[in-house]
Amino acid sequence: MNDSLQAKSALVVFSGGQDSTTCLYWAINNFNAVRTLTFDYGQRHRIELECAKQIAELARVPNEVLSIGTFAELGGNALTGNQEVEVQKEKSNRENLPNTFVPGRNLILLSFAAARAWQLEIENIVTGVCQTDYSGYPDCRKNTIEALQLALNLGMERQFVLHTPLMWLDKAQTVMMAKDLGALEALSFSHTCYNGIFPPCGSCQACHLRNKGFCEAGVIDPLIERAKKVT
Amino acid sequence: MNDSLQAKSALVVFSGGQDSTTCLYWAINNFNAVRTLTFDYGQRHRIELECAKQIAELARVPNEVLSIGTFAELGGNALTGNQEVEVQKEKSNRENLPNTFVPGRNLILLSFAAARAWQLEIENIVTGVCQTDYSGYPDCRKNTIEALQLALNLGMERQFVLHTPLMWLDKAQTVMMAKDLGALEALSFSHTCYNGIFPPCGSCQACHLRNKGFCEAGVIDPLIERAKKVT
Repeated sequence: MNDSLQAKSALVVFSGGQDSTTCLYWAINNFNAVRTLTFDYGQRHRIELECAKQIAELARVPNEVLSIGTFAELGGNALTGNQEVEVQKEKSNRENLPNTFVPGRNLILLSFAAARAWQLEIENIVTGVCQTDYSGYPDCRKNTIEALQLALNLGMERQFVLHTPLMWLDKAQTVMMAKDLGALEALSFSHTCYNGIFPPCGSCQACHLRNKGFCEAGVIDPLIERAKKVT
Repeated sequence: MNDSLQAKSALVVFSGGQDSTTCLYWAINNFNAVRTLTFDYGQRHRIELECAKQIAELARVPNEVLSIGTFAELGGNALTGNQEVEVQKEKSNRENLPNTFVPGRNLILLSFAAARAWQLEIENIVTGVCQTDYSGYPDCRKNTIEALQLALNLGMERQFVLHTPLMWLDKAQTVMMAKDLGALEALSFSHTCYNGIFPPCGSCQACHLRNKGFCEAGVIDPLIERAKKVT
């Protein structure tokens, strides 16, 4: 980390989930001034935006919400596009993806984050993407992030650094990192459940994976503890 | 150009202006199936969207409009952001840019175009960016476009080619290319004037530059001819 003033500030791409909450605390531990940017892009559960707000308040960092309606529109287009054109289909192993899947979503979110960082004169951008656990989204991988960093730096004439502290961690290691960073209280407000409810359902795939990570790390999930108090 | 089916299709990023109209005709001359994608991102003059539609009809290619409200929101944020954070300002030669200026706009537009192209299984994307005449926007330059192409290909697992037929041309050369491609009639519907009017004002900087390009190419601007008939 160099000592220039910009190097002391960071913008965290912040969904209010477990990974970006851990990244927020990583940033707080590494930079003097941190702010968060949350995207409202029509995600299924509005509870995520509320979680992001609560966690940012707890961490005492600004939380800004930027709306991107275009992903929803792109999702719709795939279903309702009425302008036909002679385009041959190539064989693809991705044809079973939901029609709301938008390829390159992370590329676009990070580009908007960089645009906002440019305005704020912040050069450090922190994102929770993870190659170990990238779930088939190639824009979470290290090589994509490096290429994007180059494109952003050439295209905006800045020296952005895209920090990816979780890139090579598995879920248990991310939990350990969160514990070491003092992020467990904040994680009690983070959202994971696919069913978009609090207390979490505990049985969906997202709850299952979160639970597995905490178990393997030997850490009690503070979200579950908070849920017990509420119910 | 290879002979695979995808290579015969192209998506043109299409504003309805002089450059992208020329690119559209370049694409029509180089691909079997062409469609256009126009972004509605709160540009000052709605007439541009209408021009895009008219020109696409004339060229008999589909024209799809995708809305991106985020640029307007980013423009506003720079003015109205009420969440302060301790960010030191670096010296910048860009402080006189309008607050609606969004850095990296082309990066984001091209990423959305690639997302749409991914859905359509088109790998050729055509854009009218130009390094010769890039007006201080670094994301129009060749090196930025090349880096972005790499990021898009890694992040979406495709082999997109970002075609930039105007990259090294000046305005007069672009006019000559349009003439050679049979695009002059279409250019009579293209919009340029900063004042957003038809007939064009003829005195703003945009009208002046357009006129200069046609004069140097020794070609009569078909837009002016059409305006004469209307008035």
